[in-house]
Amino acid sequence: MISVIILGAGNVATHLFNAFEKAEQVEVKQWYNRSIKSIQSYKNKVAITDNLSELVDADVYIIAVSDDAIANFSTQLSFENKLVVHTSGSVNVHDLDKKNRRGVFYPLQTFSKAATLDFATVPICLEVLDKADLKTLKSLAKAIGCNAHKVNTQQRKALHLAAVYVNNFTNQLYRVAHEITESKGVEFDILKPLILETAKKVQDMSPYMAQTGPAKRNDKKTIKKHLKLLENEQHKAIYELMTASIQKTHGRKKL
Amino acid sequence: MISVIILGAGNVATHLFNAFEKAEQVEVKQWYNRSIKSIQSYKNKVAITDNLSELVDADVYIIAVSDDAIANFSTQLSFENKLVVHTSGSVNVHDLDKKNRRGVFYPLQTFSKAATLDFATVPICLEVLDKADLKTLKSLAKAIGCNAHKVNTQQRKALHLAAVYVNNFTNQLYRVAHEITESKGVEFDILKPLILETAKKVQDMSPYMAQTGPAKRNDKKTIKKHLKLLENEQHKAIYELMTASIQKTHGRKKL
Repeated sequence: MISVIILGAGNVATHLFNAFEKAEQVEVKQWYNRSIKSIQSYKNKVAITDNLSELVDADVYIIAVSDDAIANFSTQLSFENKLVVHTSGSVNVHDLDKKNRRGVFYPLQTFSKAATLDFATVPICLEVLDKADLKTLKSLAKAIGCNAHKVNTQQRKALHLAAVYVNNFTNQLYRVAHEITESKGVEFDILKPLILETAKKVQDMSPYMAQTGPAKRNDKKTIKKHLKLLENEQHKAIYELMTASIQKTHGRKKL
Repeated sequence: MISVIILGAGNVATHLFNAFEKAEQVEVKQWYNRSIKSIQSYKNKVAITDNLSELVDADVYIIAVSDDAIANFSTQLSFENKLVVHTSGSVNVHDLDKKNRRGVFYPLQTFSKAATLDFATVPICLEVLDKADLKTLKSLAKAIGCNAHKVNTQQRKALHLAAVYVNNFTNQLYRVAHEITESKGVEFDILKPLILETAKKVQDMSPYMAQTGPAKRNDKKTIKKHLKLLENEQHKAIYELMTASIQKTHGRKKL
């Protein structure tokens, strides 16, 4: 049994609590948040507190507050030599106060309160300063059904950056597509199977192999037609840049 | 029962043949290709030919050749007043020779020979010049389990353009992510669940609502960190443009 205390009440904290609560091998001893209101509805499931001096003993303390607040928050913990981890993709492990044993427990996934999520599909990236702590964090990831990956700081930051491309930027491409279809009064819904298939395809095939379309084929006629159709200057800039990027990857000449 | 003849042997033609063959309500009467070699392996399943003058009578003739070849190919058909459709997202329906009844049967999906595909998830966009032909094409789409959508030319072209964003450009973002992770010796595989979840999220939620991340939050510190990490100038240009696009959508100031 691994005992944990969750610190913070954002999306990651909430999803982690739900995953830990279901796990047989994990006991959430306490859930702390600066404002007790955000976690009040959990008071029958777990001991809640808004007082850091009330924190009890646990195997892992998980700081799931906003990136900017992590360093300062870790100095406010009144205990020492415990395993304290943050859940951020971009914050340095050394930003945690060195009075405790430090680590990172970074779930690489998109979390929103509304969307339900099968936590077992979430890869957890682990970083520790003391090798002995790796075993604990691995067991914790395993207890909630997740694959754990030991990474170094550089690798975690590269993953966090890459995640922005495959999540935020990809989602924005969906948004641009929504704007394009909407402007012609046609349902965005028609694109949904294609969106899903595009993501599924690279589960078994490299993005390089999966590429198709006018940019890869260097089909100048279609590219020209598309650019003519685009009324929004920013949509056009995205079209040109992504086409150039595809052509660079696949050894085509520039537009 | 609807009888069809497939003309061409590319990815779309092949996927259509496989879908029609499984459908109880569809009979593929012939499969034509300029080079008989490409369809030789199907000769025990369907009558194959490389001779246009051998084409027999059918309810629908499906031209699935490359976009540039469609117009000229349609003039080579020796019959008249039959229902002839092409499968392209961007070619005008009027580019088909007017001696026949003309239409479009455009499956909006990414087709590659290697990847297997559940055709029932593919939306078919239909366009006809003679309203009476709509019923036939709708039945044909339904026979292979697909949702059919009547669209006009402008709408079909908007969908084709939007598909480039959600398929080709999205796939290229996956490729950029692959390059970023590879450069730090970390597995691209770790990103796969996030890729899938990003696509799943917009099945029930608008891309606007689904957006998260530093650009939307206007988290300048993280954006700056990311830009500093990026060594490839084109990756950097994509980061800046997509961040600006997200900020425009969500009413944030420019970088």
